[in-house]
Amino acid sequence: MGLPDTMRAAVLHAPGDLRIEERPRPTPAYGEVLVQVAAVGVCGSDTHYFEHGRIGEFVVRAPLVLGHESAGRIVAVGADVPADRIGQRVSVEPGVPCRRCHECRHGRYNLCPDVRFFGTPPIDGAFCEYVTVPADFAHPVPDGVSDEAAGLIEPMSVGIWACRKGSVAPGSRVLVAGAGPIGLVTAQAARVFGAAEVIVTDVSEARLAVAGRFGATGTVLAGTPLAGAENATAGGGFDVFVDCSGAPAAVTAGLRSVRRAGTAVLVGMGADEVPIPVDVVQRRELTLTGTFRYANTWPLAIRLAATGRIDLDGLVTDRYPLDDAAAAMRPKPDGEERIKAVVLPQLRAG
Amino acid sequence: MGLPDTMRAAVLHAPGDLRIEERPRPTPAYGEVLVQVAAVGVCGSDTHYFEHGRIGEFVVRAPLVLGHESAGRIVAVGADVPADRIGQRVSVEPGVPCRRCHECRHGRYNLCPDVRFFGTPPIDGAFCEYVTVPADFAHPVPDGVSDEAAGLIEPMSVGIWACRKGSVAPGSRVLVAGAGPIGLVTAQAARVFGAAEVIVTDVSEARLAVAGRFGATGTVLAGTPLAGAENATAGGGFDVFVDCSGAPAAVTAGLRSVRRAGTAVLVGMGADEVPIPVDVVQRRELTLTGTFRYANTWPLAIRLAATGRIDLDGLVTDRYPLDDAAAAMRPKPDGEERIKAVVLPQLRAG
Amino acid sequence: MGLPDTMRAAVLHAPGDLRIEERPRPTPAYGEVLVQVAAVGVCGSDTHYFEHGRIGEFVVRAPLVLGHESAGRIVAVGADVPADRIGQRVSVEPGVPCRRCHECRHGRYNLCPDVRFFGTPPIDGAFCEYVTVPADFAHPVPDGVSDEAAGLIEPMSVGIWACRKGSVAPGSRVLVAGAGPIGLVTAQAARVFGAAEVIVTDVSEARLAVAGRFGATGTVLAGTPLAGAENATAGGGFDVFVDCSGAPAAVTAGLRSVRRAGTAVLVGMGADEVPIPVDVVQRRELTLTGTFRYANTWPLAIRLAATGRIDLDGLVTDRYPLDDAAAAMRPKPDGEERIKAVVLPQLRAG
Amino acid sequence: MGLPDTMRAAVLHAPGDLRIEERPRPTPAYGEVLVQVAAVGVCGSDTHYFEHGRIGEFVVRAPLVLGHESAGRIVAVGADVPADRIGQRVSVEPGVPCRRCHECRHGRYNLCPDVRFFGTPPIDGAFCEYVTVPADFAHPVPDGVSDEAAGLIEPMSVGIWACRKGSVAPGSRVLVAGAGPIGLVTAQAARVFGAAEVIVTDVSEARLAVAGRFGATGTVLAGTPLAGAENATAGGGFDVFVDCSGAPAAVTAGLRSVRRAGTAVLVGMGADEVPIPVDVVQRRELTLTGTFRYANTWPLAIRLAATGRIDLDGLVTDRYPLDDAAAAMRPKPDGEERIKAVVLPQLRAG
Repeated sequence: MGLPDTMRAAVLHAPGDLRIEERPRPTPAYGEVLVQVAAVGVCGSDTHYFEHGRIGEFVVRAPLVLGHESAGRIVAVGADVPADRIGQRVSVEPGVPCRRCHECRHGRYNLCPDVRFFGTPPIDGAFCEYVTVPADFAHPVPDGVSDEAAGLIEPMSVGIWACRKGSVAPGSRVLVAGAGPIGLVTAQAARVFGAAEVIVTDVSEARLAVAGRFGATGTVLAGTPLAGAENATAGGGFDVFVDCSGAPAAVTAGLRSVRRAGTAVLVGMGADEVPIPVDVVQRRELTLTGTFRYANTWPLAIRLAATGRIDLDGLVTDRYPLDDAAAAMRPKPDGEERIKAVVLPQLRAG
Repeated sequence: MGLPDTMRAAVLHAPGDLRIEERPRPTPAYGEVLVQVAAVGVCGSDTHYFEHGRIGEFVVRAPLVLGHESAGRIVAVGADVPADRIGQRVSVEPGVPCRRCHECRHGRYNLCPDVRFFGTPPIDGAFCEYVTVPADFAHPVPDGVSDEAAGLIEPMSVGIWACRKGSVAPGSRVLVAGAGPIGLVTAQAARVFGAAEVIVTDVSEARLAVAGRFGATGTVLAGTPLAGAENATAGGGFDVFVDCSGAPAAVTAGLRSVRRAGTAVLVGMGADEVPIPVDVVQRRELTLTGTFRYANTWPLAIRLAATGRIDLDGLVTDRYPLDDAAAAMRPKPDGEERIKAVVLPQLRAG
Repeated sequence: MGLPDTMRAAVLHAPGDLRIEERPRPTPAYGEVLVQVAAVGVCGSDTHYFEHGRIGEFVVRAPLVLGHESAGRIVAVGADVPADRIGQRVSVEPGVPCRRCHECRHGRYNLCPDVRFFGTPPIDGAFCEYVTVPADFAHPVPDGVSDEAAGLIEPMSVGIWACRKGSVAPGSRVLVAGAGPIGLVTAQAARVFGAAEVIVTDVSEARLAVAGRFGATGTVLAGTPLAGAENATAGGGFDVFVDCSGAPAAVTAGLRSVRRAGTAVLVGMGADEVPIPVDVVQRRELTLTGTFRYANTWPLAIRLAATGRIDLDGLVTDRYPLDDAAAAMRPKPDGEERIKAVVLPQLRAG
Repeated sequence: MGLPDTMRAAVLHAPGDLRIEERPRPTPAYGEVLVQVAAVGVCGSDTHYFEHGRIGEFVVRAPLVLGHESAGRIVAVGADVPADRIGQRVSVEPGVPCRRCHECRHGRYNLCPDVRFFGTPPIDGAFCEYVTVPADFAHPVPDGVSDEAAGLIEPMSVGIWACRKGSVAPGSRVLVAGAGPIGLVTAQAARVFGAAEVIVTDVSEARLAVAGRFGATGTVLAGTPLAGAENATAGGGFDVFVDCSGAPAAVTAGLRSVRRAGTAVLVGMGADEVPIPVDVVQRRELTLTGTFRYANTWPLAIRLAATGRIDLDGLVTDRYPLDDAAAAMRPKPDGEERIKAVVLPQLRAG
């Protein structure tokens, strides 16, 4: 069908130095598919790499293509992949594990020490025109799900995973700290898991203002006393607390507001260490866990998007052609708040 | 059968002020039994109350009988309790819940906000000649289990509960921080749960020296590098870490030595706050929990003691008559290390 | 406040022999409340006792008041119950456990061998004007929940329990056999638990016709091939199968339609034995369980009713005053299908 | 190192028609190792194929090499496998899954619909001199574990898996029906999981006679009343029942002897259908499941064998060279009972 031999890609060379380059188009290896990228969400980690060139121990040492929230259309298949997959619209799961280690064999493939994750040094990501991925990590999406929503299945998976790890159940009262994109998908996931109450907190009133559209049943400005907090000592409190803020103060306040035998999930990154109140964890026998990406979430997330149980399109506030990928990763010149920016590699810059 | 109307009790009036007094003998109420106390272990919380008059928010405001690791013989029963229980040797489970609240109805009766716990203000404990307790909290013990061992079912329960909460399983590699009595029962419990390896750490070489008799397969002086620690990043590490030390440094080192998807259980008390390494908890998806006493452990602990799977008698290093209860709660004059002191109310001071 | 000394009750003397009698009004004992009954649903077990005088080993040997799906208003309290509960509208949880046995202490109080269950020989039920029940088994309902809905919290609990036992989760595909009241509440519960698909089967097209109003996303006439059945061998199939029919053929067909690692829950009663296909259970590692009533479901069910997540009022097709309780337990003279009949003890026969 | 180009293999052509043939020696593909087979246990399924040419839907349509309980030494490696694995003694896990399907990604790789299992049509097994297998399915064994024990890690895995699925826990009372090899490894596994009591039943007193050496704490001739059975109604009974007999009568009797909230695991094959007592399953809320092979058991089983916690060598009663493989699959001429026969391909027939 005449696929080009090269493609454009947004390549990070150094902090702030993102260049649009012509690169060889990848070829799908055994078991892989070639996806023509239609939409790629911009994640906080992308902007962090763009600004700082590193996240903790992960350092951009060689030119790197960022982007891991991608969707598109299969345009070619490698050996041992049915040809009828060509033409399929897919959402790309960006972390490909080894399939052989202890973690993979136990179904915890997100913990595979040899996982290759899009846009994480030294693995290239999806701010480009074509990517290859194993066929089973290219998940078909029905027509009712837009390209942009298909790309945002990735952050949605983070929220679903948090709710699974936190054992959100029908009737649960859930506290979500942080009203950024991850807080908003977590709130939505909590509702899908049957939560009766989802309270979202944030330091920004602007961010809280939109939370009601994405699952929150109530919002509280960070620092304001939480209805549940004192109550938790007496036997009330939240069933589940999910931190999507990364702020130690939010974690401490959240833990104190959880009921006996409740759970807390740390999703947000930022602080190296967080002090936890030992007596609260012990007297209430709280269960605290952290999440690292997700496993086995795509089929559910796609089904939820397809049936309208979640709203991913509504998260997208800004769209950029590939040539303007740098702009997508910088704050908006007018200082306006974004929820989610999306890069559309097939869009020609106007 | 001629039960006396009064009894002797060791009553704490103020820090360090423990007096042997004559008190009315209690009478078993509806559903209760009267137990003539044969042996009562001395817990670290007893000595803490004795020295400081308080543990955190629990303050000794009125004269209090301490002691909650007790066993003895049923000598009378209240209404609705079969008379044939008289004469039975029993181990006393010292925390009696309300049986009606949310926690009780879910089987988590240790978290009952209205639990009445022996020797915790304002509830009297067992450093005395007779106690009453609901019939189902007086657990029969077979003849092969000594009175002292029957009393130590209580601390053993703490170890069992820690292993349950930590999901210790056949083949597990377990790290236990702290080689005091709770560390030693936890190590024993871990072996019963099938652990293949139980490494115990402590700051005291003297305490470590006995750990091998109580389940440890290896010991490490605290501060020494742990074989598992670096390894944990690479995919090795301990399956379960149980802190019985309460030392923040031990908690941090322990957490860093746990494998991906492993668990950590905080049993030891001491620090108000412990800093946890967020990135370790997240990248390995560790599960961290605290324990508060125990629930539904007596039948198992008694069965283990009866079949010789655990050694409780070996923990007892010092015995005191009731009149010397204060001595049981003070450090030994010769500075020698105790493992576990036991008060024997029926023993006449020599 | 002038409570009457006597009350009317519908008393079963023999199969088909139900008499309205004047009986002493019960008095709330220690820890109990007195409830003036407003509404009582008629369960299949009530009609079975009415027709046959027994259900399996449970035989009506002495005059018995049936009815266990009840709600009303607290009009008096026993000792140790706060007086401010008087006036409260409540849903009555009808199985009161001993709170002391192995099952109760583990939170499985529905399995208590000494449970006292309303309307099950020899315990009287709620087809009468007043009942007593422990205060914590009289669950407050908000004003938005009608008396009839408050009574139907009981069957709703059966559906919730089935979904808990079957691990219905977000995105689940669920098959429910039987479109009677229990099938309909199970279908509703499945949706609340996040099921993406709920297929209901029945031998009656009339019953299937209403299933769509109560959670079913599709219906299939029993005996018709199930879309999922063959598929299950290939890797598809239902995640959860709940039998609410009691028909062996439905159980067998249902089991064969469950996917690998799926679950099956037997709720319906009827057959003494059901043949299960061993190779299917083994090759797919199905988990099969039965349910016996429920535990810890009232708070969730009330919350769901209060927030409009479930429709209980819509189940009520027929209402009877207490004097016509016998009619409520007989088939309708016109042969018309009932979903749920309700007896209203405060309604005067017109 | 001079590996031969051909090898001897025992090939089944038709029921009872097993021929020793010279075949090309296999070559390890990408990611595989070549194992020189040292010992292969004879499983009941091997003898069933040998006698009948089929097991249910699995039919031997082309010449087939049986045998799936194998161990040996790595003598060559394929691409991408470290050369230092050559020389390693290994136990071979004989079911290689696709690693890509829904089941594999969830860690339930034993349920992979595309699993390739040794000695199951049309996949050749290990009654031969060399086999290839993916490197991660050749599990290293320490020197303390014999070749024969290393081969029997496979049946041991069946017992471990049964105990995992049945949630055998410290203190459990376990009933095992069937004292064949699978019953004996299950009894051993139950002890390792902490079971306090393991009762084994069988129709053969000869088989029961050896059960005490392999974990049984008691034995009961099938048909004899079980101590636990009546008791189960009253609140006692076994915590876990594992059927390793495949006999419907044993399954029914076993189910009736399980306590409230207990579990039953169907391991034994034989009957197409088993009638289950619905009221028992419901009133006690039993959980019933079947097992299909195992997943993630090798590391534990090897560790248990290495530390002497289980006895696999003691199971081997008969040894045969490859040339006598047919004899290994036929009943012994003297009618004597075997526990486990082993084929030793490197042993020269005497």
